Amino acid sequence: MEEQPSAGVILPGFERVRERFEALLAEDPEYSAAVAAYVDGELVVDLWGGERLHERSIVTTFSCTKGVSGICVGLLVERGLLDLDEPVSRYWPEFAQHGKAAVTVRELLSHQSGLIGVDGGFGVEELLGHERLAERLAGQRPYWQPGAAHGYHALTIGVLTDELVRRTDGRSLAEFYTDEIRLPCDVDFFIGLPESEDERVVPLLAPELPGDPAVLALMEATFARGTLGGVAMNAEMAEFPPFPPFPPFPPLVELANMTALHRAGPPAMGGVGNARGLARLYACCVSDVAGKRLLSPETVEAVSRLQVIGDDLVLGMPTRFATLFQKPDERLGYGSHRTFGHDGVGGGIGFADPEDGLCFGYTTPRMPLPGGADARGLALAATIRECM
Amino acid sequence: MEEQPSAGVILPGFERVRERFEALLAEDPEYSAAVAAYVDGELVVDLWGGERLHERSIVTTFSCTKGVSGICVGLLVERGLLDLDEPVSRYWPEFAQHGKAAVTVRELLSHQSGLIGVDGGFGVEELLGHERLAERLAGQRPYWQPGAAHGYHALTIGVLTDELVRRTDGRSLAEFYTDEIRLPCDVDFFIGLPESEDERVVPLLAPELPGDPAVLALMEATFARGTLGGVAMNAEMAEFPPFPPFPPFPPLVELANMTALHRAGPPAMGGVGNARGLARLYACCVSDVAGKRLLSPETVEAVSRLQVIGDDLVLGMPTRFATLFQKPDERLGYGSHRTFGHDGVGGGIGFADPEDGLCFGYTTPRMPLPGGADARGLALAATIRECM
Amino acid sequence: MEEQPSAGVILPGFERVRERFEALLAEDPEYSAAVAAYVDGELVVDLWGGERLHERSIVTTFSCTKGVSGICVGLLVERGLLDLDEPVSRYWPEFAQHGKAAVTVRELLSHQSGLIGVDGGFGVEELLGHERLAERLAGQRPYWQPGAAHGYHALTIGVLTDELVRRTDGRSLAEFYTDEIRLPCDVDFFIGLPESEDERVVPLLAPELPGDPAVLALMEATFARGTLGGVAMNAEMAEFPPFPPFPPFPPLVELANMTALHRAGPPAMGGVGNARGLARLYACCVSDVAGKRLLSPETVEAVSRLQVIGDDLVLGMPTRFATLFQKPDERLGYGSHRTFGHDGVGGGIGFADPEDGLCFGYTTPRMPLPGGADARGLALAATIRECM
Repeated sequence: MEEQPSAGVILPGFERVRERFEALLAEDPEYSAAVAAYVDGELVVDLWGGERLHERSIVTTFSCTKGVSGICVGLLVERGLLDLDEPVSRYWPEFAQHGKAAVTVRELLSHQSGLIGVDGGFGVEELLGHERLAERLAGQRPYWQPGAAHGYHALTIGVLTDELVRRTDGRSLAEFYTDEIRLPCDVDFFIGLPESEDERVVPLLAPELPGDPAVLALMEATFARGTLGGVAMNAEMAEFPPFPPFPPFPPLVELANMTALHRAGPPAMGGVGNARGLARLYACCVSDVAGKRLLSPETVEAVSRLQVIGDDLVLGMPTRFATLFQKPDERLGYGSHRTFGHDGVGGGIGFADPEDGLCFGYTTPRMPLPGGADARGLALAATIRECM
Repeated sequence: MEEQPSAGVILPGFERVRERFEALLAEDPEYSAAVAAYVDGELVVDLWGGERLHERSIVTTFSCTKGVSGICVGLLVERGLLDLDEPVSRYWPEFAQHGKAAVTVRELLSHQSGLIGVDGGFGVEELLGHERLAERLAGQRPYWQPGAAHGYHALTIGVLTDELVRRTDGRSLAEFYTDEIRLPCDVDFFIGLPESEDERVVPLLAPELPGDPAVLALMEATFARGTLGGVAMNAEMAEFPPFPPFPPFPPLVELANMTALHRAGPPAMGGVGNARGLARLYACCVSDVAGKRLLSPETVEAVSRLQVIGDDLVLGMPTRFATLFQKPDERLGYGSHRTFGHDGVGGGIGFADPEDGLCFGYTTPRMPLPGGADARGLALAATIRECM
Repeated sequence: MEEQPSAGVILPGFERVRERFEALLAEDPEYSAAVAAYVDGELVVDLWGGERLHERSIVTTFSCTKGVSGICVGLLVERGLLDLDEPVSRYWPEFAQHGKAAVTVRELLSHQSGLIGVDGGFGVEELLGHERLAERLAGQRPYWQPGAAHGYHALTIGVLTDELVRRTDGRSLAEFYTDEIRLPCDVDFFIGLPESEDERVVPLLAPELPGDPAVLALMEATFARGTLGGVAMNAEMAEFPPFPPFPPFPPLVELANMTALHRAGPPAMGGVGNARGLARLYACCVSDVAGKRLLSPETVEAVSRLQVIGDDLVLGMPTRFATLFQKPDERLGYGSHRTFGHDGVGGGIGFADPEDGLCFGYTTPRMPLPGGADARGLALAATIRECM
């Protein structure tokens, strides 16, 4: 290990982050990752390393995109265009079908409405095309009594959020994000990737198999056809095989690597970016970053407030959500009770912790098993906190 | 094992069900059971075996009856006589006492109202006579804050449901069921058994004791006097000893074998029938059976929608309920998320799974320990699925 | 052990309680405690023993005080001054800030409002002074979505309750309690201790350390800064160090032993009294004690009704609460489902069980680890039940 295996910027006092990162890189020659952090609006860590990632690399971030959608919702709330306590049907009258007239925006965006899929499933084109799937979701009977429980709306939450953006702002979520957040805040994270950026995209790799058979079996059971997990992962559609069942594992990775996905940027899982972009996005929510701040503390509090806890009907384990954002819990103990963020099945994570001002981003181009924030990314976040 | 230990009909393709059933019969000479299944409205399995059951035998099914009551409620919903979102007090004004005015039909029928018993307990005559107990329940303070939690209303849910049938249709649940479901659908399952059928009733046997001491101790603790389980099992009434405490174990079995119980048919646990009847009932809900179909898909969805999850205040373990129906969970993993049904403490179970069209019934005349669907019945259901 | 190590009164039939108590005293020479019980309004056990407690000793009871506050709320309900189903803001208009306008008294007093602290923490003076902290709580954004979950409002519940007493009765909770309960019922338990009683106060001792390292680590994690537990224990304020983190452990004990705390009597944890007083208080709720009875059975039922179950966001374990009162659960299995009471971190407990008429009090001057009802106190309650 003669060469320096990582590159990037570290502010004085954060040298241990580089040490830890390089130790992780040294442990696993297959490992590539990028990690970035702002503290109180200042970039303190911006590192990348491993053979597959370079300074300007971007990757499909899967559900990290949900956190970015949450920031868009925050901006609508900030501007008074969207009220979390109003019924969804106030903004989207067609949504009132099948007893959903009283479901609030707050319930919808915290995975309580039971609209985890549509009868008969949907194709990739529908997911990427939005309108038809939004219309079908409006007409869908909920998969459980709205408000009685919560379960991860893995794919549909993006369509539902997008439609609310369209009904309140007029633009699509991708347009709204690009115009109001990405460009003004100069963020290297895309919802709807322009062709000009395609060459920067690093393809995702599937997890290294075989993994732990017990983990694989649990994932297979959780997302099997006939389960709510299967509905949420749209397991009915042969053209869009879920993750899992195994085999085949690859399909979700194939979806992640489709240029059409990047171009459309479905707001549940189609965002493409890097650690620096994720960290900067969250920093712009809770701090002044180069003269830009997106959300007032009141709005941050409103959208990051815990809305649901307990067993997740889809994932079969306890989860905690705010309005679109994940909240830290035992599995994802990455910050104070004020923290809001989202991880992705690809291993990435982005979050802000208003308590200590840390805003963090992490991306890696190989999916871990099981999915969700890579433990190495969480370890790096912990090291950053030790340095603060 | 020279003789054929089972009898009945198997459609081609389902031969393995008979093999499995006969293997179970061979393992345990005390075992008798009946199993039946419809797929998409067609009877594919109709078997019985063991010394104690014959082709036309019927048994007390305990809480399997709750599922049949759920079908009656579905028919009221189908006919527009009952709206799940209305307050119970709209139909039953006396119910509004003690802060219960706003409790909805949906909450009441998913074990959320806290009306698990009455202060001082009630006698068997009251359970069988209905009116007095309904009046006392209307005047009862709930045993927890309605809507704050759920707990299995083991005996009272039948009285509450029956009163709603009477207040909306005019007939008793037993009459409504007989006229509108049993006779037109030609179902061998009775709520209110006519004298003419008495000779077909096979008495239930108590579980073989000693069982697992830990199981018995847990049951005793769960249903002890002073617990909510004790209230729900009406443990206060010496004349109606619950199941457990042990000893004596027999009383619940004695109740099950009372002709007066069969004649009255309390809708929580007084139904008498066989596996064929249960399977046919569920088949008539989700399929066309000989030109008969009871419920539209919309109504099926409405009454089978998950309403509650989490720790059951009465049973002390997690349960899931729709409107009267049980929903599959880890303990009772008998079908897809769309499945609805109910098991009974005597070991029987009936369910429909609209996802694959399987409708299943199972009865056995010896109570298992602990109570609830006999594992052998669930194993047979799994075998049927393998054959589909 | 020549001398009689305990003193006090035992009614015939309860001799085994003295035997058990003396066995506990003999096991641990450091142990001092007092235990008292009424059955159906009659004092049947009144014992004290160990070197540190005498007949008229009183101790800081920490959260046992919450139960006494609950009795005050019951008396307001009894008198028609407070309606649990009304919004808090009806009585306390300033409370309506930050989306709290619809939070009901019932939700507030069962730890559901999310007002577990104030941004920036608060000083001891504010806790003891009440008005300023009440004002800050009215203006505070909830720490989770009100009604979405519950979590132990360890310190603030007293301020919130006190303000409701002031807004409905006009007096402070301490004054209301003194005038309407302590003096007329002749109870040796004080909220707001008069100087004349100071000499009777026995200082609390910190737990014997080292305790179980796993327990200490769990407590430290539960109440760390940045957690909801830390907010609830006001961990931000250097002047009021929480319990834990360790070290230092002593601060909560120091708080408990401050004369200013006793004098002010914050209703979450500032009550000072003895076992006899606690038992008598609960007895006056459910029985006639020397011609005095505070609450009708209807009011007892209303305030002792279970309101919340499940994982407590602050304590990180399941808890069950009625209106201010704890309800028995697996950890605190001290009575029937009708039981209501409260323990304290100092080891004490008081409760009433309307099912069998037992009203119980227990105090000890050394805090156990972990905090909460001393197992020896619960064992004595069980022995009393065996004698009944």
